[in-house]
Amino acid sequence: MKLYTYSGAPNPRRVHIYLAERGIEVPFEQVDIMQRANRTPEFMSQVNAMGGLPVLELDDGSHIAESVAICRYFEALHPEPPLFGSTPYEQGIVEMWIRRIELNFMVPVGMVWIHGSPLTRAVMKNQIAAAADQYRAVVQGYFGFLDRHLADHDFLTGETYSVADILALCTLDFAAKLNDLPHSPEQKHLTRWYESVSTRPSAGA
Amino acid sequence: MKLYTYSGAPNPRRVHIYLAERGIEVPFEQVDIMQRANRTPEFMSQVNAMGGLPVLELDDGSHIAESVAICRYFEALHPEPPLFGSTPYEQGIVEMWIRRIELNFMVPVGMVWIHGSPLTRAVMKNQIAAAADQYRAVVQGYFGFLDRHLADHDFLTGETYSVADILALCTLDFAAKLNDLPHSPEQKHLTRWYESVSTRPSAGA
Repeated sequence: MKLYTYSGAPNPRRVHIYLAERGIEVPFEQVDIMQRANRTPEFMSQVNAMGGLPVLELDDGSHIAESVAICRYFEALHPEPPLFGSTPYEQGIVEMWIRRIELNFMVPVGMVWIHGSPLTRAVMKNQIAAAADQYRAVVQGYFGFLDRHLADHDFLTGETYSVADILALCTLDFAAKLNDLPHSPEQKHLTRWYESVSTRPSAGA
Repeated sequence: MKLYTYSGAPNPRRVHIYLAERGIEVPFEQVDIMQRANRTPEFMSQVNAMGGLPVLELDDGSHIAESVAICRYFEALHPEPPLFGSTPYEQGIVEMWIRRIELNFMVPVGMVWIHGSPLTRAVMKNQIAAAADQYRAVVQGYFGFLDRHLADHDFLTGETYSVADILALCTLDFAAKLNDLPHSPEQKHLTRWYESVSTRPSAGA
């Protein structure tokens, strides 16, 4: 088994944090996204037809792509302690927050990255500056939503750390560090949550 | 228990198809999206702070929003026959395809809907026509990816129908019927898959 990854990229980081939380060690191989090593015909035909990272390669040569799918695979193998919820209700709520963070936070940050970053300009060729501006505002609005929600929740799903917090941490760092979109320190509930999750030992994985 | 829904909208439809596949009946209440009944202060404070549909209300008054989260809740209650996969590997592959369909197919169709549809213009106010054009091309490219994949797979994840097929069916119909973005009948593998999943009795739910 090995994990194709690229250290520092937001989606691979989710899996590294998840594995660190569970104490699971998996050998990994770096694939240089900035050199487009994940878009070669060889990688796309043999590892991931979508060209994305991370990808888990199993001992029989099969592959599971997509960060959350890899985490779910390990959760099914090692269900305790649960990071995707335990009871049916908890499983539903964790999935709800995974999807909220993915679709309402990571997708808009991704729009800013694709349409507004100097780092993606050469590859994208057809960036739409107005789209970057519009989704910057969406992200800033979402910081406010998270801050209000976290006023009376320790973690996104309630009292327990979950995969949804891992996704939100990676997205927030991606927004702040690579897209110049930090939340405001005046958003004190979001700031308290961020300090809590980013100082866990797993956050440095 | 009841399901807040809006018949004909693509995300609520996923849950209706899932429930029909499992033979589960849940009372439902229509919330008129076109009249913004899902964006009233009352709905957002008491049912779903994000204002989206569908939302499942449990007997204790708690709520689970997000289509796939609602399906996962029912899957945890009634795990047979599985629509999210059975073995850890299958669970990973179903999640991989859920995410591919969501992020690489539904998100671009959503961009066309938000930035290019006359039906959303009044609400959006700041549509970006260039974004609609760009994501129309992304969707058309994705039809080709699906067609190539389905050349040697009965369903998205292999030989077995799963939630990923439900998401893809609803997204494809949303693209074709509400965004004037049909796939080509010359994409014969995609067409064969579409005929297979859209003629299941559940597809009319």
